[in-house]
Amino acid sequence: MFDITASVRLRPSPYYEATLAEGVTGFQPYNRMLLPTSFGDPEAEYWRLIKGVVQWDVGCERQVQLTGPDAGRLAQILSPRDLTRCRAGQGKYVPLCNHAGVLINDPVLLKLDEDRYWLSIADSDIWLWAQAIAAERRLDVEISEPDVSPLAVQGPRGEDVVAAIFGDWVRELKYFWFRETAIEGIPLVVARSGWSKQGGFELYLMDGARGTQLWNIVKEAGRRWDIGPGAPNTCEWVESGLLSFGADTDDATNPYEVRLGKYVELQVPDEVIGIQALRRIHAAGPRRHQLGLVLHGHEPIALRSSWHTIRKGNENVGSLTNCMWSYRLKRNIGYALISMACNPGDAVEVIHEGRPLAGALTGLPFL
Amino acid sequence: MFDITASVRLRPSPYYEATLAEGVTGFQPYNRMLLPTSFGDPEAEYWRLIKGVVQWDVGCERQVQLTGPDAGRLAQILSPRDLTRCRAGQGKYVPLCNHAGVLINDPVLLKLDEDRYWLSIADSDIWLWAQAIAAERRLDVEISEPDVSPLAVQGPRGEDVVAAIFGDWVRELKYFWFRETAIEGIPLVVARSGWSKQGGFELYLMDGARGTQLWNIVKEAGRRWDIGPGAPNTCEWVESGLLSFGADTDDATNPYEVRLGKYVELQVPDEVIGIQALRRIHAAGPRRHQLGLVLHGHEPIALRSSWHTIRKGNENVGSLTNCMWSYRLKRNIGYALISMACNPGDAVEVIHEGRPLAGALTGLPFL
Repeated sequence: MFDITASVRLRPSPYYEATLAEGVTGFQPYNRMLLPTSFGDPEAEYWRLIKGVVQWDVGCERQVQLTGPDAGRLAQILSPRDLTRCRAGQGKYVPLCNHAGVLINDPVLLKLDEDRYWLSIADSDIWLWAQAIAAERRLDVEISEPDVSPLAVQGPRGEDVVAAIFGDWVRELKYFWFRETAIEGIPLVVARSGWSKQGGFELYLMDGARGTQLWNIVKEAGRRWDIGPGAPNTCEWVESGLLSFGADTDDATNPYEVRLGKYVELQVPDEVIGIQALRRIHAAGPRRHQLGLVLHGHEPIALRSSWHTIRKGNENVGSLTNCMWSYRLKRNIGYALISMACNPGDAVEVIHEGRPLAGALTGLPFL
Repeated sequence: MFDITASVRLRPSPYYEATLAEGVTGFQPYNRMLLPTSFGDPEAEYWRLIKGVVQWDVGCERQVQLTGPDAGRLAQILSPRDLTRCRAGQGKYVPLCNHAGVLINDPVLLKLDEDRYWLSIADSDIWLWAQAIAAERRLDVEISEPDVSPLAVQGPRGEDVVAAIFGDWVRELKYFWFRETAIEGIPLVVARSGWSKQGGFELYLMDGARGTQLWNIVKEAGRRWDIGPGAPNTCEWVESGLLSFGADTDDATNPYEVRLGKYVELQVPDEVIGIQALRRIHAAGPRRHQLGLVLHGHEPIALRSSWHTIRKGNENVGSLTNCMWSYRLKRNIGYALISMACNPGDAVEVIHEGRPLAGALTGLPFL
């Protein structure tokens, strides 16, 4: 055992003290912050997400804020998804690519108004990227990291909890839409969003000094529905087919390879980064795609958390990325980033610590 | 207590197994890897660095490799230090700035040949930055992360150890110069370099599968000089006046504020990123500078690892960044990033957990 040395390289989330008080047992680094991974009972946290409601410290989902006259133009330049009809108060899931069409992040974009946007990012440094592009193209836009830290309320009872706090208007919010509001004087944005397929909201806290207060407001309101602490749940999001940028992607992955082709709109202007490359990739067809993989056997297998070679016959055909025991399917399931020559139904082997594990490819999502 | 969850977001260093075998007790994340911070006896590790020789896993000092016809031009565009006379086999400490002249990294640049460079980076994502700049300027250069992971041999006996392994030619290497070579078939670069002022070398391992083997070669060769494991030593580098990018800098720090003005050469071409802004800052004079700060009292004080407000009279004048107990000076010493109106000799107070700690400003380095 060893410690993680306290360091300014790991900034505390506004909810850090609250999660310690709840008995957090694990963290992982994410955007230079600590993301809680468990509170000691992964299976109970899973079932509470599936059947009830959980609250998560996802303060590490940082915001890259674009402000100024060219904010909208820069947002469009950064993403190959058409933002023409995006309205203030609307969010959109937007892949970001480099000039070669390789995925470099997959944030939710929030359009706060015509000259203010947030990119609520996955784990890569989009501040530097956006700064470089804006400066090189001489755009009139400021890029900053505002004091904004999401707290997620997820699960089928999530809407009840958030409505109990903010009012029934939240029930009318469409997916990814949001509204700025306040509770007990705490400024925040309420968005229908979150890193699960079980429904729910994210509360974008806009005052980092009030994390514990917001955590406790949610905890109190959720008591009726037996809310509990949790974290983005690998089992649930793998079952649901969600992508984890940086874990299920490598530094050559394009959107078409990981089921994000529908978010690439080839008619966007030529100034959009990567669009020429994406048009070429689309025309030629990608070389890999993402499928599900189910390992044989009915017991949980703890795989090392890295990519594992997939073999079909005698050939290396791809990699197993995230892989977890599914509490609902009672199988070990994961994602295969794999040759287009492979298809659902194919029998494959995964090489783990030198030994082959037998399994089969499937479609996605699992559930 | 809590664990850090195993994750592909923390890649193991090639020396990870070796450091576990040596009894590593702490890590911090750095460039998405784990940097060892201690092996259980910080004071012994410090004195061994000052008086003998230590070996460090600094595999997290990653390389941003630039290759191709425009590699040299891109290297110059990225840094305001004049590289015109940099020769193959030579390294240089080069600040990197954004277009506003703000420091975004401070790597050692290694010129391997006319069309291949490494930027041996501190903790920020320069791959994305360099990719953005190269693509926006349509340069003919490839940016990649090679399989290269430094192991440091530091301390006054470091040269003896490295000479015992590679031969006496290493004694002739000038500071930051390097040579490609091999030991027991392991390809590597030997450079006179390292993150201390006690002298020594960095061995840039070029085959990640052979980290334990290289670690053990150094350990065996160093036995005569009582080599031991260690890590970049905060006490030593604060005493010596070295800068820790991202810890002693914020997102508005320019090179002039942190004693790096001598590496900014204002006559470099206009296409160099940030040079116009740096010329303006130079002409106007920076608003902050970096001084030493010595707290009163003769006992170690454990400060939280974040920035602390410095007050002079009733005014907030700056921040205390890294601060450590100095084993040689027997004082708590640190860096002040502080208003130009403050000078060595000034009495100040540091606000720590709401209470003032008295101290005085000094020049740098401390030793």
